[in-house]
Amino acid sequence: MKSLRKELWFHVPSRRGFINITPQVEEAVKESGIKDGLALVNAMHITASVFINDDEKGLHRDYDDWLEKLAPHEPVSQYRHNVGEDNADAHMKRQIMGREAVIAITDGKLDLGPWEQVFYGEFDGRRKKRALIKLIGD
Amino acid sequence: MKSLRKELWFHVPSRRGFINITPQVEEAVKESGIKDGLALVNAMHITASVFINDDEKGLHRDYDDWLEKLAPHEPVSQYRHNVGEDNADAHMKRQIMGREAVIAITDGKLDLGPWEQVFYGEFDGRRKKRALIKLIGD
Amino acid sequence: MKSLRKELWFHVPSRRGFINITPQVEEAVKESGIKDGLALVNAMHITASVFINDDEKGLHRDYDDWLEKLAPHEPVSQYRHNVGEDNADAHMKRQIMGREAVIAITDGKLDLGPWEQVFYGEFDGRRKKRALIKLIGD
Repeated sequence: MKSLRKELWFHVPSRRGFINITPQVEEAVKESGIKDGLALVNAMHITASVFINDDEKGLHRDYDDWLEKLAPHEPVSQYRHNVGEDNADAHMKRQIMGREAVIAITDGKLDLGPWEQVFYGEFDGRRKKRALIKLIGD
Repeated sequence: MKSLRKELWFHVPSRRGFINITPQVEEAVKESGIKDGLALVNAMHITASVFINDDEKGLHRDYDDWLEKLAPHEPVSQYRHNVGEDNADAHMKRQIMGREAVIAITDGKLDLGPWEQVFYGEFDGRRKKRALIKLIGD
Repeated sequence: MKSLRKELWFHVPSRRGFINITPQVEEAVKESGIKDGLALVNAMHITASVFINDDEKGLHRDYDDWLEKLAPHEPVSQYRHNVGEDNADAHMKRQIMGREAVIAITDGKLDLGPWEQVFYGEFDGRRKKRALIKLIGD
C-alpha cells in the first residue's frame, strides 16, 4: 500500500470565502503514484470545511447568503460559545457544508463527476489555516 | 490490495426522489471479493446525494418537506445561480444530505447497523445521472 | 493491509447529548498497529451522528438549540414518520451533523488538527446504541 500526506495552507483575507483546491489534490495524486485508492481531504480547523460542488460564482454567493440565514453571525451574543470569541456561527456553517470529502482514485486520477470540484470553505478567516490531503492505495 | 469501481445510473422522473441502492452496493462488495476494507459511495452530480438513513416512506416525505423549507425551490429568482438554470436549491439540499457515504466492509459484507440503508437522493431529476461505488481492501 | 473493527456502546440518559470519543478511537489506532491509513468512525444508528468539532460546553449547548430550531422535536405530529414513534426530528438533526468521520492515520496516530475532537452525537437516547470504528492501512 502506498500513501501520501500533504498539508495545504490558506489565508483568506475576509471572514468567509471558497477556494477551489482541485488542482492541488490532483497534483498530490500524481505525486503519490497511486493508481487505485481513496483520497481524504479535510479541513484541519473546526470553523472551515472541505466540500465538493460547482465552481460557479453565483452559487457561492447563494451559499454565503443561505448559510448566513441558517446560522447568522450577528448578534454574536446569541451564542453561548461566544465568550471572548465571535465565531460560533462558523462552527455551525461548517457542519452544514461538512468537514471532509472522500474521493475515489482510479487510473492515477481523481475519479470525479463532470462538474465536481473540491473546495476549501472558510467561515472564520483572516488568519492562516490548513487542510489535509491523505491518499492511500496501490 | 483489491479494488472495484462501478457506476450506478438513475433516471428519476420527478424533480426529487430517494432510491434505496443498498442491494447494488452489497452486490458490488460480493463481486469484488473484498473481505475487509472500505466502500465509498458518492453522487457524481452536484445536485444529488448519497446518504444513509431509514427506508421509511413517511420519513422520506418528511425529508422532502423539510429540505424544501430549509432551501426552497421557489421563487427561483431568489438565487444568483439561477441564470438560465433553476436548480440552485438542489445544490443546497445536497449539502445538507451529503455527497457520499463511507461504509466498512467486514467478512465480505457491508458492515451496517440494523436500520442503516444506503440511498441515492435526487434533487434535480428528470435526466440520467449516476453514482460511483469504489471499494478497496483485502 | 492491516485492519481493525471495534464497536463503542453508549447509553445517553437524556434524549440528546454529545460524547467525546477521541480517546477510544486513538486507543483503537494504537491497538491496530497501523502506521499509515484511514479511520472510519460512524454511528450505527440513523438517529445519531459521529462528527468532529470543538470540545466546548457552550458550543454544544448552541448546537442543541440550533438543531432544535432547524428540526424541532415538537409538535411530534408535524412529521409523517411519527406514527407510533416520536423521533423524526432526530433523523433530521443527524443529517445536519453527519453520520461519519473519516480521519487520516499518520505515524500510528490520528492525524487531527489542533482543536479537532471526535464526538458521538445522540439525538434519540435513553437506550443502548453504538458506533463503529473501522481502521485500514499498513
